[in-house]
Amino acid sequence: MNKVILFNKRPVGKPTLDDFKFVEEEQPEVADGQVLLKTLYVSVDPYLRGRMTEAKSYIPPFELNKPLQSAVVAEVVESRLEGFKLGDFVTGNLDWKEFQVSNGSGLNKVDGDAASLSAYLGILGMTGLTAYFGLTEIAHPKSGETVVISGAAGAVGSVAGQIAKILGCRVIGLAGSEEKIHLLKSKFGFDEGINYKKTADMKHAIAEAAPNGVDIYFDNVGGAVSDAVLANINKFGRVPLCGSISNYNDTEVDLGPRIQSTLVKNSVLMQGFIVSNYSTKFKDGMAQLSKWLQEGKLEYAETVVDGFDQIPQAFIDLFEGKNNGKMVVKI
Amino acid sequence: MNKVILFNKRPVGKPTLDDFKFVEEEQPEVADGQVLLKTLYVSVDPYLRGRMTEAKSYIPPFELNKPLQSAVVAEVVESRLEGFKLGDFVTGNLDWKEFQVSNGSGLNKVDGDAASLSAYLGILGMTGLTAYFGLTEIAHPKSGETVVISGAAGAVGSVAGQIAKILGCRVIGLAGSEEKIHLLKSKFGFDEGINYKKTADMKHAIAEAAPNGVDIYFDNVGGAVSDAVLANINKFGRVPLCGSISNYNDTEVDLGPRIQSTLVKNSVLMQGFIVSNYSTKFKDGMAQLSKWLQEGKLEYAETVVDGFDQIPQAFIDLFEGKNNGKMVVKI
Repeated sequence: MNKVILFNKRPVGKPTLDDFKFVEEEQPEVADGQVLLKTLYVSVDPYLRGRMTEAKSYIPPFELNKPLQSAVVAEVVESRLEGFKLGDFVTGNLDWKEFQVSNGSGLNKVDGDAASLSAYLGILGMTGLTAYFGLTEIAHPKSGETVVISGAAGAVGSVAGQIAKILGCRVIGLAGSEEKIHLLKSKFGFDEGINYKKTADMKHAIAEAAPNGVDIYFDNVGGAVSDAVLANINKFGRVPLCGSISNYNDTEVDLGPRIQSTLVKNSVLMQGFIVSNYSTKFKDGMAQLSKWLQEGKLEYAETVVDGFDQIPQAFIDLFEGKNNGKMVVKI
Repeated sequence: MNKVILFNKRPVGKPTLDDFKFVEEEQPEVADGQVLLKTLYVSVDPYLRGRMTEAKSYIPPFELNKPLQSAVVAEVVESRLEGFKLGDFVTGNLDWKEFQVSNGSGLNKVDGDAASLSAYLGILGMTGLTAYFGLTEIAHPKSGETVVISGAAGAVGSVAGQIAKILGCRVIGLAGSEEKIHLLKSKFGFDEGINYKKTADMKHAIAEAAPNGVDIYFDNVGGAVSDAVLANINKFGRVPLCGSISNYNDTEVDLGPRIQSTLVKNSVLMQGFIVSNYSTKFKDGMAQLSKWLQEGKLEYAETVVDGFDQIPQAFIDLFEGKNNGKMVVKI
């Protein structure tokens, strides 16, 4: 039998295990023009929380009693589709199933020798590309500028900080544990790290860490942390916004100081984005990230959880910040 | 004797007449390399409120016991400076004085026959250019798009709306009186107007006026009005921010729903700016605005107040929305 995870009910506030349902179905049959895929790695990502609500967003909401989906690395275990052969590795936005068939649409073959397979869900996948395009297409870092990154130990933030370093910036990371702050400096080469959970006056702490002010704020979290960073933003500052995990689970309106007058006073650019806005440039982005990775200029961290049954819990743990770098589930 | 208005004290909240001090000084003497200028029109603008605080901003704060300054149209009444002759009209950022000397720095000659002199403080001056560059450099309107403008009957908003119409957009103006709403539609050719002071549910009212959503929000005011517009913003929306008059007089932090998640979900661009960011393009902007004005494609409104002594009150009245279009004081 084939294990499947269905969307059981829409979470109110923080997701719980009740929102997911495990079922078993018959092993799928492969027709002509199809491949059978065996799931190897499943990506869990904060943005999936958005698909669990009914609200209009950049991708349609998940449907109840249907399988959940995310980025997956799979192996071709049977092929009746030209261009795919047994043992090929592919990525795609796939169902949370142990096995599934596909007509090949949306699948990309990946090279298991060039990098570890799970890297294609992280540094060579959506999260690495999110960091890359947020910086290169929106923030345009100049050597010597000061860059602050929230969610800095996460899958996007840790790569964004390293790219900013490669481009000659001073980089300050914000994260929520001493272990993460240590990782930022020891593994990812950040200049400074601030533990927002242990810092009473974040505005002041950022001012101290960024004596020349903040030129770029790569924002993964939103909320009060962002208020404190924006209070230190420089003239012509740039703020790529790629997530706001701090309020994905909010059930009430998230109130804070209105930021418009800060943006006017300092001629600040703020740009919300999702990585697929830059899909025509994915190939270039992946080539650059692969090159840096091979040159040893980029490090990446993964939190790998074992077992298909652990996918929902791994997802829930994202909102507790239990991951260092990319959270993936190995099947 | 020469009348002068000094900055008496920093306002707390809304400015009052006590914040200004009228004094008289000797008539200035003109040295070699100087001109004597007679003030004809004085511009009063919301952004001056920012210079009355000590907070860091894009221009230095006013100093206490020194003359206040703003954009002024003046006439050369004595010249010992090459390139300036008796009867020339000039604009510049000048002191609030009836007469003053200048070495010519920062003065621009204007043509009193091509347009009314006061127009150089408005539609052919900073406010017209602010509207022009906010749209052409940030918002990039496409024909058929929906544009919402706050402070729509003001000096910037009324021009921004007309330019958006010239570029083929559907334009909805937000303003604070029935008289202004009438003006938007009858004089400036807006498609719709919403009186935010008479509308309980602005979010809903904007949704009704903009059935296809909002592609561009030209924001002059900030505050709760902006929350309602942003709740209707479309994917890839653009939000030029040129002012936030609703909270210039605030003495407490202006709280509202944090907007980051809206910007992420819809890949929205928000860009604060001041007109001087585009100073290298002023000539082109003025040429385009003059052309549209001469072709009868642009209308402008002025509220002209009479008398040097009325400058402070005219400024204060801006925050009550007592102006239609550009507020100027005729000396």
